[in-house]
Amino acid sequence: MNGITKTARAFVPSHITGFFAAHRQEEPRLAGSVGCGLCLSLGATTTIESAPEIHDTEIFLNGARSEAPVSRYVVEKLVKEPVRVKTELSMPLGAGFGASGAGALGCAYALNSCFNLGLTANGAAAVAHEAEVTFRTGLGDVIAQNAGGLVVRLQPGAPGTGRIDRIPVPTMPISYVVHGPLSTSQVLSDEKTMTAVNLAGEAALKELLKRPTFTNFLQLSRRFTVQSGLASDWALEAIEAVEAAGGMAGMIMLGDAVFAFGGGSAEALRTFGEVHTTTISQRGANLD
Amino acid sequence: MNGITKTARAFVPSHITGFFAAHRQEEPRLAGSVGCGLCLSLGATTTIESAPEIHDTEIFLNGARSEAPVSRYVVEKLVKEPVRVKTELSMPLGAGFGASGAGALGCAYALNSCFNLGLTANGAAAVAHEAEVTFRTGLGDVIAQNAGGLVVRLQPGAPGTGRIDRIPVPTMPISYVVHGPLSTSQVLSDEKTMTAVNLAGEAALKELLKRPTFTNFLQLSRRFTVQSGLASDWALEAIEAVEAAGGMAGMIMLGDAVFAFGGGSAEALRTFGEVHTTTISQRGANLD
Repeated sequence: MNGITKTARAFVPSHITGFFAAHRQEEPRLAGSVGCGLCLSLGATTTIESAPEIHDTEIFLNGARSEAPVSRYVVEKLVKEPVRVKTELSMPLGAGFGASGAGALGCAYALNSCFNLGLTANGAAAVAHEAEVTFRTGLGDVIAQNAGGLVVRLQPGAPGTGRIDRIPVPTMPISYVVHGPLSTSQVLSDEKTMTAVNLAGEAALKELLKRPTFTNFLQLSRRFTVQSGLASDWALEAIEAVEAAGGMAGMIMLGDAVFAFGGGSAEALRTFGEVHTTTISQRGANLD
Repeated sequence: MNGITKTARAFVPSHITGFFAAHRQEEPRLAGSVGCGLCLSLGATTTIESAPEIHDTEIFLNGARSEAPVSRYVVEKLVKEPVRVKTELSMPLGAGFGASGAGALGCAYALNSCFNLGLTANGAAAVAHEAEVTFRTGLGDVIAQNAGGLVVRLQPGAPGTGRIDRIPVPTMPISYVVHGPLSTSQVLSDEKTMTAVNLAGEAALKELLKRPTFTNFLQLSRRFTVQSGLASDWALEAIEAVEAAGGMAGMIMLGDAVFAFGGGSAEALRTFGEVHTTTISQRGANLD
């Protein structure tokens, strides 16, 4: 399709995890996480241009030159020549929206199309998953972003290796407030934290599968927020404010950020920061 | 979500198969087909209403009371009480767009929500697949419609049992013309026809996986149209007219209908009937 211009573009939705348990493995395609999270229509649009005139691959995030090691890994894995990558993100960075996964996944899809690499969706996405796991920037965003909707990660691994299902859910509004970033790689490297996280995450998944509904996802995310020990005081207060207004909320894993649904949740969050409202994305990653 | 009104609604995209091979099995969840097809944004919107005042389940297709045995099977499998089902189809009926699968799948999603049955997406969709296989109205539409996009069916079976992947593809326009219906159950019951179909279908899948691109899907669908022996003279002439205009086309499996992409395909089809143009649906089935 892009033989003449040598350019291709892909869209990837953001993804917020409600709860998770990490599964370490030597082999990146087997590593990942189980848990459950929501794809949101805030997304990343990545354009690839072949650029034979440059010496090194150039990556731009929202117009600014960036190192973007996760996306760079995908480029170097898939093509031998330098390219120009332009990713426009409509989601917050470093706040648990899966921005690095979205950039890497968009890169993989767009490179596949631009250079006619002949990879399937899972084949392209597996490279992005590998990049995320290698840089410890995420464990389960890519497989969920590849599918869209409210995704349950049943077995860890890259797209095509891990096993997922979805929980049926209409295209509903979700509000969120971001207080600050949280380093995914730092959390994942702390043994003590991860013991509590994994225990709470496995329990939540087991519970969710007994009754896989949107409401139950929200309740279990709320419980995980406390049991995992990851929540800040700010996050807990924001969640309680939403609940007092008749809504449901949980912390976005992993960011110092809160997502909420129903009741007067958007209003209730207003004292905690700038409130944004987006919708669930029913579609997963694909060419744009 | 629907506790008070006891109503729920689901959307399911249409699905046209380019090529396939049938896999018979006693157990409906293991039966199905392999092959490749496109989800289109023409869809089925199904509303379920609890109706304790009626004695038997009532099903309406585009406003008219209908037997709709495939959807009825899903209702009887999932709930004990009579319900009112209203399905609005924006796709042609009996022409290979997966209308029965779309109705049944929408039914399963909407019933699951309306009666809070606690099924995952795959759990609900597996019942619709079972209904299709039982009535021989389809073998692979449901698993593809559940996912969205350009879906490769790698291993037969219901959603959660069969194995699929996608071929990355942008949201592109697809044109089609319908000449008449083709009975899926009649084709599937003809042993001699099915021998040719399965031979050609398995070969096309093997070939597609060597180079899984949209263009290759179109070329292999074209080849399958001839090799399967299913094409009418009308369909072959329509396909050739599209090719002469610089586009690509194939027969819609199973309908006496042709789909086309690129070049002057919509114009070229004009002498063969009323030409419609729709787009690829990146989203699969879900609540609406």
